Amino acid sequence: MAVRAPRSLIRPLVQRLHAYVPGEQPKIPGLIKLNTNENPYPPSPKVLAAVKAAVDGRLRLYPNPTASALRERLAKLHGCAPENIIVGNGSDELLALATRTFVEPVAAEVRRRTDGNASESASSPRRLPSAAVQFFNPSYSLYPVLAEIAGALPNAVPLNADFTLPALASLPKKGWDFKAALSLITTPNAPSGRGYGTAELDALCAKSRGVVVLDEAYVDFAREHAMALALKHPHVLVSRTFSKAYSLCFQRVGYFVGHADLIAALDKVRDSYNVNGLGQVAALATLDDLPYYRRNFRRIIATREQVTRELTGLGWSVLPSQTNFLLARPPRFPAEAWLAKLRAKKLLVRWFKYPEVRDYLRITIGSSAEMETFVRTARAIAAVK
Amino acid sequence: MAVRAPRSLIRPLVQRLHAYVPGEQPKIPGLIKLNTNENPYPPSPKVLAAVKAAVDGRLRLYPNPTASALRERLAKLHGCAPENIIVGNGSDELLALATRTFVEPVAAEVRRRTDGNASESASSPRRLPSAAVQFFNPSYSLYPVLAEIAGALPNAVPLNADFTLPALASLPKKGWDFKAALSLITTPNAPSGRGYGTAELDALCAKSRGVVVLDEAYVDFAREHAMALALKHPHVLVSRTFSKAYSLCFQRVGYFVGHADLIAALDKVRDSYNVNGLGQVAALATLDDLPYYRRNFRRIIATREQVTRELTGLGWSVLPSQTNFLLARPPRFPAEAWLAKLRAKKLLVRWFKYPEVRDYLRITIGSSAEMETFVRTARAIAAVK
Repeated sequence: MAVRAPRSLIRPLVQRLHAYVPGEQPKIPGLIKLNTNENPYPPSPKVLAAVKAAVDGRLRLYPNPTASALRERLAKLHGCAPENIIVGNGSDELLALATRTFVEPVAAEVRRRTDGNASESASSPRRLPSAAVQFFNPSYSLYPVLAEIAGALPNAVPLNADFTLPALASLPKKGWDFKAALSLITTPNAPSGRGYGTAELDALCAKSRGVVVLDEAYVDFAREHAMALALKHPHVLVSRTFSKAYSLCFQRVGYFVGHADLIAALDKVRDSYNVNGLGQVAALATLDDLPYYRRNFRRIIATREQVTRELTGLGWSVLPSQTNFLLARPPRFPAEAWLAKLRAKKLLVRWFKYPEVRDYLRITIGSSAEMETFVRTARAIAAVK
Repeated sequence: MAVRAPRSLIRPLVQRLHAYVPGEQPKIPGLIKLNTNENPYPPSPKVLAAVKAAVDGRLRLYPNPTASALRERLAKLHGCAPENIIVGNGSDELLALATRTFVEPVAAEVRRRTDGNASESASSPRRLPSAAVQFFNPSYSLYPVLAEIAGALPNAVPLNADFTLPALASLPKKGWDFKAALSLITTPNAPSGRGYGTAELDALCAKSRGVVVLDEAYVDFAREHAMALALKHPHVLVSRTFSKAYSLCFQRVGYFVGHADLIAALDKVRDSYNVNGLGQVAALATLDDLPYYRRNFRRIIATREQVTRELTGLGWSVLPSQTNFLLARPPRFPAEAWLAKLRAKKLLVRWFKYPEVRDYLRITIGSSAEMETFVRTARAIAAVK
C-alpha cells in the first residue's frame, strides 16, 4: 500500500474540492463549548426515557424508511400533509440533496472559468447561468461547499454591511439572480444572528423563478418564522432541524416542508434508510413535550439579551441576535487573538477567517452559569495591562 | 397549494428516476419477517447497555464528525490505519458517495441514447464510456438506481445462469468493461447467496483500471472474505456494515476500507456529521463483544444448512448460500403466488420481479423457531389439493 492511488481514479471536481470544516468537537475536561451553537440544556427527561426504552431487540431491524410516523406528526404540527415533508439525516443531508435534485451540474470548463472565491464573484456581478446555487454572504459556510460538490456554480451575494438583507430592488445590482436554480437563505442568519422579516422573504420568494430554501435552523429563538411561505409558494421549501433548539445534534434529524412535487423529487434522490431509528424515536418524543423546549427557548433568549447588554458594557460591538448565538466584535485585541485567549481559559468560541466576519467572534449562548463565566473571563482578558 | 410545482424546477434526470424500492417494514402483529435479511438475534446485552448508558445530556452535542474512535478500532481489527477507513450512515450512503466521487456524470443526451433496461444493455455488449457504474446482474438492486441518480451509465453484466461469476476471459464478451470508473461487486452475492472465491476476485481486481468496491455486507456468513484485496490494490475498496451480521440495521453504520487517497476523496464529498452518535457508540460496543456475534453467525449458518436440506426435500430448488438468506425456487406454484400464500400465513419473504430471479423467493434465515414455522407452512401450502 506504499504506492499512491492514481489520481485519475478520482473525479477532477472532487480532487479540487475544499472540504467543509465543521466546528471542533474537542474532549477537554472542563471546557465550555460555545463554538457550534448546541443547546446548553439536555433533551427533556421524557425524550431520554423514550429513547432508552427503544434500545432493545428492535435495533436489529431496519428503521421506518420514510419516517412515516414522524412525518405525520410534523404535518399536524405545521398544518400540512405528510407528503409535504421529507426527513433527513440532519438538515445538512437535505441541503445537499436539494443541490442534487434541483441544480444541473455545469460542464467542468464553465466551472473553471467562473472559479475563484465567492466574494470575488459577488463583488463583480455578471450574468450567471441559472445552474447556480445562490446564497448571501456571509451565511452558512456549508453552502459553497455543497455547490462545488454538486458541480454547480456558487453565487455568493453580499449582505449589507450591517448584515441586513439588501432591498429587493437592489438585489440584481448586487449579483442576485432571480432565475438561479436554487437559493439557500439562512433565516435568521448565521453567523450574523440577524432575523429577516417574513414579508421581506415573501417578496423575495415571489420574484424567484428557481427553488428557494429558507433554512430556519435557528428559528425557535426568533420573533417570527416563515413556515407559511413553504405552504404558499410551490417553489419554496422551509428547512428545520431538531439539532439546536431541540437538543438532538447527536441524533441527526432535520426536515424540509414544501410542495409535494418538490418533496417527491427529493425523495427519489434520498438514501432509502437515511434516518436512523433512535433518531426517529427521539424526534417523536420531542414533539410530545414541546412545552419543555419552549421554556428552554425563553431561558436562552433571556441569557442572550443579558450577555448582549454585558458585553456591550465591556466595549464589545454586539449584533442584535434572533438566534442562540451572538456575533460580536471584541475590543482591544483582534478577534483571532481573543479566540486563543479565551481558549486558554477553556472557553471555546468560533472564529471565521473570511473577510466579512474576521473581526468578529461567534459565541453560542450557553447556560446562564457558563455565560457568567464567559463575561467574567472576557472582562479579565480586556483588563490585562 | 393546489397548483403543481413547475416541472422545470426539478432536474430532468431526477424527473425520470425510478426510486429504489426497499423491502417492506410492516407492523403486523405476529408477522415473521424474512424479507430484508435482518439478523433474527438482538444486539449483545453489552451493546444494549452501552447505548442506554449513552442516552443522556450528550444528545445535545454534535457527534464526532469523523467517527474517529470507531475508525481507530476498525483499523486495529483489519490491520490498517484509520486513514484507510471511512464510516457511513449505513454502507448505502457510502455506495452513493462512491458514485459521486469516482464517476463523471455523462451528458443527458448520451444517457438517453444508452437508456433502456439493464439486461438489454448487458445482452448487447458495446463500447461504453468509462463513466459507467458497473455491476453483475442480478446483484444488489440499489446499484442501477445509484448510477442513475449520479447521472452515470449503468452497465449490468449477466452472471452465469447458475449465478456463478463468469470466467475472467469471458467477461469482455459479456459486456464487462475493465476501464469502468466504478465496479460494484456484492460478495457473497445478493440475492443469489453465492460466494465468490478471493482468488477469482483478486484476478478481476488486478485487471480493472477503475475503482472496484467489493460489497461484503453478508461476508460474516461466508467461508472467506476479501479484505486483503482492499489493502493490496490501491483501487479496491471493501464495504462492510454493522446492519445485518451485527444486528444494528436501526442505527445505520457501515464502512469502507481502502487506500487512503480514495478514502480522503470520499471524505471530501461526505456530509460532515453523517454518522449519528448512538450509532457510533453501538458500533464501538459491538467490537468489544465479537464472540457474542460469532456464536450467532454459527447458529444462523447451522439453521441455513438445515432449512436448505428440508426445503430441498420438499421439492424446492435451493441455491447454496454463503449469506444469511436463501434464494430458492419453490415447487407447484409460481414464486409470486408463494409470496402471497406465505404472507397470508404471516410469513413475509422477498420476491423480485426482474426476469433473472422472478421464479425464486429470497428467504432470510430467521431464528430456528421461525424457520421451523416456515418449513411447516411451506409443506402445508404445497400439500393443498
